[in-house]
Amino acid sequence: MRNLKITLEYDGTNYCGWQIQRRNRRKVSIQGTVEKTLRKILQEKIHLIASGRTDAGVHARAQVANFKTSSVIPLDKLQYALNGLLPNDISITGIREARSDFHSRFDAKSKAYRYTILNRRQPSAFLRTAAYFYPYPLDIKLMRDEAGVLLGRHDFRSFKASDEIERNSIRTIKKIRIAKDKDLISIDIEADGFLYNMARAIAGTLLEIGRGRFHKGSLKKILKSCNRGLAGPTLPAYGLCLLKVKY
Amino acid sequence: MRNLKITLEYDGTNYCGWQIQRRNRRKVSIQGTVEKTLRKILQEKIHLIASGRTDAGVHARAQVANFKTSSVIPLDKLQYALNGLLPNDISITGIREARSDFHSRFDAKSKAYRYTILNRRQPSAFLRTAAYFYPYPLDIKLMRDEAGVLLGRHDFRSFKASDEIERNSIRTIKKIRIAKDKDLISIDIEADGFLYNMARAIAGTLLEIGRGRFHKGSLKKILKSCNRGLAGPTLPAYGLCLLKVKY
Repeated sequence: MRNLKITLEYDGTNYCGWQIQRRNRRKVSIQGTVEKTLRKILQEKIHLIASGRTDAGVHARAQVANFKTSSVIPLDKLQYALNGLLPNDISITGIREARSDFHSRFDAKSKAYRYTILNRRQPSAFLRTAAYFYPYPLDIKLMRDEAGVLLGRHDFRSFKASDEIERNSIRTIKKIRIAKDKDLISIDIEADGFLYNMARAIAGTLLEIGRGRFHKGSLKKILKSCNRGLAGPTLPAYGLCLLKVKY
Repeated sequence: MRNLKITLEYDGTNYCGWQIQRRNRRKVSIQGTVEKTLRKILQEKIHLIASGRTDAGVHARAQVANFKTSSVIPLDKLQYALNGLLPNDISITGIREARSDFHSRFDAKSKAYRYTILNRRQPSAFLRTAAYFYPYPLDIKLMRDEAGVLLGRHDFRSFKASDEIERNSIRTIKKIRIAKDKDLISIDIEADGFLYNMARAIAGTLLEIGRGRFHKGSLKKILKSCNRGLAGPTLPAYGLCLLKVKY
């Protein structure tokens, strides 16, 4: 059996997320769509393992997944066949042979997500499914200054979905960077793992800081409180993109 | 009566073009959608005049249109109401009062279009409706060298839709620029006017040059021939975007 590692780019808009979700049965999953296409090409049942699930509407520039196959098809042929048959909002940007014990999820050392905010007076027709539109002034400097306290190993309970039961909410944020390019603000977070909704809740909290609703020093208090109620809102999924998975 | 000038950004994917077209009745037009929304807000019938029609699937960063109204509504209120009620693939990015005799089409001095080509081995999930995917090598230098002959006043009959009866096919190209940014190639053309399909036929011809099917010196011959049959194909509409209209 070969163990193949693929890199995927997808626009999550039309999907219920990486995996089938009970709440959203009208849309198909990315995993299901790719598995079905692989089955068509390889003529065998395929089980695809991703680095982690992405939620409905969340995008990926470089999601990583792996699967075992007994097929001996050359990799470039498989890639062209996949991109030919997949819907055009999913693209396989890379494919290669991995060690037999490589596991996309267990072996992932860190993941980087980007939350994008469009900060101008009027919405954009082109970014409507890729950036959260916020038309009022933001204090980027304060957002940057505050964000620093999130670096390192912490209990991120304040930033996890309130209905999620997760035993261990300790994670390590390795990098956090807030960049501004014209009217686009991007919040890049690299961590060894993310709690459910964590990236979106951090982005929502930083937005509250930037707009002046939360003051200087508040992020430290929110983090220490381990109380989801004190943090900002979970911003919409469509502003979030999985940028990279490191192994 | 006030004469209002608006600037529009739109993703043309879900529209039959600026104007209702006989061939494509299943999709609505951008003009019709904006007129309907204006009517709702202003409570009067509105006739919207654009700088020119854009075809089905063609996008705009800054289309310009104007309309007369007896309403005295403040402009910022009108803009917010429009963006609130319009579908989110159309955005009104600017609105201002124009001279009473301003006419978006007749007064336009030049228009700039961009044709975008994604030149990498695999397609992109994000650019599927914004760039033409071409996975093979392109000789950008030769494309640039050849493009120069299009500058100036010429009969562009070789680059107009073959089924279009247009009395005068003489236009002036003021600027043409081929830029490459990583795997994105953009062909920017500014002209005093464009024949139907002209930008897409020029892009298609430059692509034939870049891929080596048309050789050095061929663009000059094609232009002089006034024969549409000698030029390259009309590339798909979704790669084209109206960038700017100058007055």
